[in-house]
Amino acid sequence: MSYFADIAVAPVLAFALGFRIMKISVIVAHPNPGSFNHAIARTAAAELEQNGHTVAFHDLHAEKFDPLLPFEEIPMKADVPPDIAAQGREIAEADGIVVAHPNWWSQPPAILKGWMDRVLRPGVAYKFGTAPNGEGIIIGLLKARAALVFTTSNTPADKEISLYGDPLEGLWKRCVWGFCGVKEVHRELFGVIITSTPEQRAQWLLRTRQLVSRTFPPG
Amino acid sequence: MSYFADIAVAPVLAFALGFRIMKISVIVAHPNPGSFNHAIARTAAAELEQNGHTVAFHDLHAEKFDPLLPFEEIPMKADVPPDIAAQGREIAEADGIVVAHPNWWSQPPAILKGWMDRVLRPGVAYKFGTAPNGEGIIIGLLKARAALVFTTSNTPADKEISLYGDPLEGLWKRCVWGFCGVKEVHRELFGVIITSTPEQRAQWLLRTRQLVSRTFPPG
Repeated sequence: MSYFADIAVAPVLAFALGFRIMKISVIVAHPNPGSFNHAIARTAAAELEQNGHTVAFHDLHAEKFDPLLPFEEIPMKADVPPDIAAQGREIAEADGIVVAHPNWWSQPPAILKGWMDRVLRPGVAYKFGTAPNGEGIIIGLLKARAALVFTTSNTPADKEISLYGDPLEGLWKRCVWGFCGVKEVHRELFGVIITSTPEQRAQWLLRTRQLVSRTFPPG
Repeated sequence: MSYFADIAVAPVLAFALGFRIMKISVIVAHPNPGSFNHAIARTAAAELEQNGHTVAFHDLHAEKFDPLLPFEEIPMKADVPPDIAAQGREIAEADGIVVAHPNWWSQPPAILKGWMDRVLRPGVAYKFGTAPNGEGIIIGLLKARAALVFTTSNTPADKEISLYGDPLEGLWKRCVWGFCGVKEVHRELFGVIITSTPEQRAQWLLRTRQLVSRTFPPG
């Protein structure tokens, strides 16, 4: 197989065999490149590539993503900086989305919140329409059929649900990806991270691979 | 009353009459200083001052607040920059809190999310404790007895609730201020802003004044 040393074998094979090669955006939001969130994102990306898909990998902190939506960018027809426009085109055209972030205040970190504020623009991720009864409605514009969201926490899952209502579940499913038209959204909660053993973390990364392959299979 | 021209009359009167003068933090998060959120925040601050209270006013965009929590600031014992430490002391010692922000993705804008991430630190806004049964618990450290949160939206309130579950209600009440020990949290939703008349907006600002005075009365 040394003929193939310089090209990506999996996509070629997938194409040859009639598999559907997908473009998947993987987004990680944690300030520590050694974080478990990064391990999740790298594991997901590796599994996707092994399945023959194309990965657009975004480490928002490494990219120094600026999360502040300026007033001038709010209007739908606003001119936006080239990097924001490029990220918008990429997420609009993605066949699938994978996100990994820590649970901070039952919400994503600010850098990821700002990514939503700036990249998921009207005209890019959704548009305004009118229902047959004349009511205003939101029409999702993202092409992705599925999104996987991994969140890590140091609050036990049962307490996140009973004490805080686990807002991340609804935020990602209904308010963000659902809003943008993504039909299938799975959110996976890993924790408690801080007291976890290497074995437990290995188990979570295995679970990551399984979820990724179930959601974005090779063919 | 011209003797009093150079001093704040209300606090002096309140003190003389035995009223309780409160320190209230007012935080607004919108990139446009001409926004309705700013009108809400200014109205709240004016009403508080009229009631004799001391206001710490924070326009996060005007202050160029940096919302990114660096990895080095995560540990409880971390050294944090002086401005973050000062904001922490201020919010910890506030007798009351008023927040105004737009609903973006059923969440606060990134700049306010980052304010939570960085300012509401362990050891400042909450600490970890142990319940009599040995379970880990969160102990809120904020002194404020009440918080008022105003959110503005272009989604009708009934749709925010039925389609998206209105996460901001729980986020502010349970996950943020409740978590930090603030007992009384009122959240007020104003909208639809974009189609509102001047009369409607005047009505909302009147409601703002009433809520502020009900929550933080003169005496």
